[in-house]
Amino acid sequence: MAADQLSLLFAPRSLALVGVSSRPESLSGRLLGNLQRAGFPGKIFPINPKARDIGGLPCFPSLAAVGEVPDVSVIMVPREHALAAVEESLACGVRALVLITAGFREGGAEGAQLEAEIVRRVRQSGALMLGPNCMGLVNTDPQVRLDATFSPVPCRPGGVAFASHSGALGVAMFEQALEVGLGISLFVSLGNSSVVNAADALEYFAEDGRTRAVMLYLEAIEEPQRFLAAAQRVAAHKPVMVLKAGRSAAGQRAASSHTGALAAQDRAVDALLRQAGCVRADSLRELLDWARTAERVAPAAGARVAVLSNAGGPAIAACDALAAQGLELAHLAPATQQALRAFLPAEAAVGNPVDMLPSARPEDFRQALEVLAQDAGVDAVVVITVTPPLASPRQVAEALATAAVPKPYLPVFMTSPQFYQEALGIPDLPPVFRFPEEAVGALAAQRRAQERAVTIQAPKVAPFRPPTVPAREGILPPQEALALVAAAGIPVAPFAIARSPQELPEAADQVGFPLVLKAFGPTLVHKSELAAVVLNIRSREQLQQEAQQLLQRLAEQGCPVEGLLLQPFLTGGRELILGITRDPVVGPLVACGLGGVAVEVWQDVAFRPAPCSLEDAQAMLAELKGKALLGPFRGKPAVDTSAVAEAVVRLSALAAGVPELEECDLNPLLAFPQGVVAVDVRVRLQRR
Amino acid sequence: MAADQLSLLFAPRSLALVGVSSRPESLSGRLLGNLQRAGFPGKIFPINPKARDIGGLPCFPSLAAVGEVPDVSVIMVPREHALAAVEESLACGVRALVLITAGFREGGAEGAQLEAEIVRRVRQSGALMLGPNCMGLVNTDPQVRLDATFSPVPCRPGGVAFASHSGALGVAMFEQALEVGLGISLFVSLGNSSVVNAADALEYFAEDGRTRAVMLYLEAIEEPQRFLAAAQRVAAHKPVMVLKAGRSAAGQRAASSHTGALAAQDRAVDALLRQAGCVRADSLRELLDWARTAERVAPAAGARVAVLSNAGGPAIAACDALAAQGLELAHLAPATQQALRAFLPAEAAVGNPVDMLPSARPEDFRQALEVLAQDAGVDAVVVITVTPPLASPRQVAEALATAAVPKPYLPVFMTSPQFYQEALGIPDLPPVFRFPEEAVGALAAQRRAQERAVTIQAPKVAPFRPPTVPAREGILPPQEALALVAAAGIPVAPFAIARSPQELPEAADQVGFPLVLKAFGPTLVHKSELAAVVLNIRSREQLQQEAQQLLQRLAEQGCPVEGLLLQPFLTGGRELILGITRDPVVGPLVACGLGGVAVEVWQDVAFRPAPCSLEDAQAMLAELKGKALLGPFRGKPAVDTSAVAEAVVRLSALAAGVPELEECDLNPLLAFPQGVVAVDVRVRLQRR
Repeated sequence: MAADQLSLLFAPRSLALVGVSSRPESLSGRLLGNLQRAGFPGKIFPINPKARDIGGLPCFPSLAAVGEVPDVSVIMVPREHALAAVEESLACGVRALVLITAGFREGGAEGAQLEAEIVRRVRQSGALMLGPNCMGLVNTDPQVRLDATFSPVPCRPGGVAFASHSGALGVAMFEQALEVGLGISLFVSLGNSSVVNAADALEYFAEDGRTRAVMLYLEAIEEPQRFLAAAQRVAAHKPVMVLKAGRSAAGQRAASSHTGALAAQDRAVDALLRQAGCVRADSLRELLDWARTAERVAPAAGARVAVLSNAGGPAIAACDALAAQGLELAHLAPATQQALRAFLPAEAAVGNPVDMLPSARPEDFRQALEVLAQDAGVDAVVVITVTPPLASPRQVAEALATAAVPKPYLPVFMTSPQFYQEALGIPDLPPVFRFPEEAVGALAAQRRAQERAVTIQAPKVAPFRPPTVPAREGILPPQEALALVAAAGIPVAPFAIARSPQELPEAADQVGFPLVLKAFGPTLVHKSELAAVVLNIRSREQLQQEAQQLLQRLAEQGCPVEGLLLQPFLTGGRELILGITRDPVVGPLVACGLGGVAVEVWQDVAFRPAPCSLEDAQAMLAELKGKALLGPFRGKPAVDTSAVAEAVVRLSALAAGVPELEECDLNPLLAFPQGVVAVDVRVRLQRR
Repeated sequence: MAADQLSLLFAPRSLALVGVSSRPESLSGRLLGNLQRAGFPGKIFPINPKARDIGGLPCFPSLAAVGEVPDVSVIMVPREHALAAVEESLACGVRALVLITAGFREGGAEGAQLEAEIVRRVRQSGALMLGPNCMGLVNTDPQVRLDATFSPVPCRPGGVAFASHSGALGVAMFEQALEVGLGISLFVSLGNSSVVNAADALEYFAEDGRTRAVMLYLEAIEEPQRFLAAAQRVAAHKPVMVLKAGRSAAGQRAASSHTGALAAQDRAVDALLRQAGCVRADSLRELLDWARTAERVAPAAGARVAVLSNAGGPAIAACDALAAQGLELAHLAPATQQALRAFLPAEAAVGNPVDMLPSARPEDFRQALEVLAQDAGVDAVVVITVTPPLASPRQVAEALATAAVPKPYLPVFMTSPQFYQEALGIPDLPPVFRFPEEAVGALAAQRRAQERAVTIQAPKVAPFRPPTVPAREGILPPQEALALVAAAGIPVAPFAIARSPQELPEAADQVGFPLVLKAFGPTLVHKSELAAVVLNIRSREQLQQEAQQLLQRLAEQGCPVEGLLLQPFLTGGRELILGITRDPVVGPLVACGLGGVAVEVWQDVAFRPAPCSLEDAQAMLAELKGKALLGPFRGKPAVDTSAVAEAVVRLSALAAGVPELEECDLNPLLAFPQGVVAVDVRVRLQRR
């Protein structure tokens, strides 16, 4: 979407409200009311042939009657008039449409057809459109003051841009945001995302100066490649927090019937979000907590956290949460402990966590926070207050707010319900949490966002010229599969083919002893289960004998044999499985896991959208729970993880560059202290 | 602790307040204020030689001067007078003491010594004591009306009994409980738990008629065997929700310095809590949410949940949460869908989740809830409301509260902050949640508690007569280790010992070919790394030859050999590892995991305190992430999991019955489609 067109949509100077009702309590009447309440400084043109004025504004019978072209046309007519209203707007030269009306793709086949027709017209004319089935959009910029939604509650202005597939959820989050003090810069209800989708919203968010963090509620990922690029662009500078609904099969079914979206495998979505630099929340509360933290608190420079409290129990809970979230309990310098000791009572604990005891005064909180933030070994502080016997929590909060702290800190108050609304009015107080675990969770999410921002700024995918593939479909014979992978730059085990027992001696000479004998043929997929593999053959005689037995065995089982593959018998490598899969939505993915039962039983596999970079591949290896198996293990040296990562990158390039490559499994890829070798390769081609 | 003594403590008819200050703002003054505010109907005797009356009550110079023996003596004197005050109380015949004073074990060696002396006196006189370093206790029974704490906020009366090692955290939770409407039956601040500990509290909670659920915040587990028994007694009838702090190493260090408690391994604590029938919360919010649900909502009869909503997004989030928490999205009967269709608009979704659309009226919520609850395939309902455009959330809540619902349901309201306090006043409305994921989490916790209640009512550990063990220390030679395990009733592989190569033929005759040859000796622990094992020996000649090479190899490596062990070469079994470990706090545990790298790399091991029942052992196998390896796998039939479970039970009995058994590892235990066989057994004895 062109940037100027998106600006038209997000920061219009004039709006037509097509189909606005004269009843202020109707949805369209409310939208006008919200526009006026927010103080929209531009022109508003109500369009309704049955009214002379609405909401104190002169009303026009048609768009053409307005006499000028509004920046945006907000269409709120019944579904049966939607196409006509869209056409009228386009005919008048409007470049940005918001189609609030519902009952399209989400309502069945007829609606889907109508939606497709509308989209075709909009695209044809080069305009853009938000919706249909949406709630509108908000821009709280004091220059723009746009609330073109029918939300019953206003947005609190602030620094978080929010895009949501669900309009109702957007409103529900506004209400929760009001309570916890999260501020919104931009809100966009994506609805069916037929033209403007999350990628467009991200492109605008990236450039918006008031937006410091992004919150997404997604039920689908449209245009995944554009989404990836747009999200990376934002995430390099601003944290992007995502709740992707439809994690489970049940949720996926519910989400597809809600938006009519095609469901992607959750692991594909997860891989995409990760590569996009987003952090993924597991719940709506996390999404809110993370976003309000990112809005107001600078990210910590590292993972070392100090815990300051006037009560032992919650401080211990914070320590447990730090460990669970991958953060560290900072080691306090002796000077820090001395400085704390100087003003805290003798019974206070000045290690980390610092327990100032219930007698701590507001001034002690301020001073201790300043001392902790000065410690070079501390990157962030969590400050926990339970209702102090000798002061009010408000006094503690005010003292904290005046502290000179060059590092991020998050206050936790476990106190009376009234306090939390009061705290929203205290200037310079960071977002307040009620439970230590949630403050720690928000710090950790910010840290992950920071780490991913670094990753996506790292050097990207190297150019790759894909090898040519045979022009047919189905499973390739092993020699072609091995050759294809070798052509992509992944080392494969030497091999030779014998079409008959007579060709075995020559083939064996090419490969050398000891060797492995494998029969191949159309039905021989799981070779080991069919005993179609013989390991460790040490001589010509043994080879002839084993081959004969093998062919006889397979003949008895009725398995046709196309040929015999000979490879050197390699020992001492550790087994990995590399593969590609194609998600119907996200597209090609590369997978990497430990071999053997690890993949089957523990599902210990990492995924990334293809193509991926070397950094991505290294991060995939670091994600494997069983990664210890690649390091020094039972007296064997570590394997060459650079070579593994390189193989992952090349396989991902192959997946991205060869669309007809439907499956490509390297099982196993043997990893040695130096280098890797693909031993068995299975390739299936499908024309597209 | 005798039940009548605990009743004295929890439901006293008279109290002496030893050391109460005449300043109402002091901690002791506040405790008196709380007693009076709560309307304690019994007698209160302030004891303070410096005052004539305190808080409107006549004051006594000493306990002896009172002229009658109070049920409880609450001691609030400075630490240096604590021993004298305790002695005075005991001398006057007081049978229950509450020592509020701090600065004992938690404050260093001197305090620990003083505490030990006080405990000795209390025990000697057969009295009981709560504390020291505690906040007191509360009983909200209208007959008792006891608030003997210095909490700045009162408890909301209700059905949850709460024991906490941290007094400050207890108070912080009172405040959160007030906000979310959780009601307390009993609260006890355990402090240092020197005499009265969590097990005593649980014994009292089990019998208390007003207590419907139990909430524990623990920093340590004192007397684990008593805790186990007491918790099982409660958990069989009332859910027990536990937050055990010190999950991480950092948290453990912080917890030990807070209470001076010995740290147990978290996995040992986890195993203990599980066997005790408790459910373990990961955060303070979970603890509160689970407890307030258990207080007011009957547990569901099954795991099938219906989701009802007026907004699609949050309903999808609920579906995802159901899957993540091990609950199921119910299949709605056609009759249910028809009944919904009859009054909902055509665009509404009447599958599960049921999306009534934003237009839903309060009456629709009530009716839909009733219809869903009548479906025989639905065990519980989650009802999600986002601010409806055409009604207030309060109206929805009131409509729900009047619904005739024979099954549990939890309401989620995502609406304006003011609503939540209002909702507390609506009679018959279950606890309200703000986010769907948290309501689902509470349902799931209740379901787990219900499942565990069933388990702990199951038949218990069979009697077991432990075999005698050799009267020495250190690692047993393999024949003795195998014999010990066999004597406990666990099948072991046949074996024979050869002390010299000359004895090999006779030993081989006992075992038969093919066989396995293993050298043993003091330094031969990891036999496979030292190549001290030879597999699949098929003849006498091969045996002699391999034995010779083996002995030579070990001699070259400087490993003394005590003898050679011969066992049949067994194939086709799947490997497990069984073992015992002793936790310094929790005591003996039995462990069961899958063999090979599974244990090392994925740490896929389940633990239970020993002894355990057959049901426990089966639950352990069900916990293993790689349990698929025990079922039908790669064409092999399932293994005999009953025999595995039986071996776990017998090993656990051995661990419990033989205290000198420091280590006992069965690695591997081979599991076959019928039966199991321990192949390698390592036993280390230590006198105690």
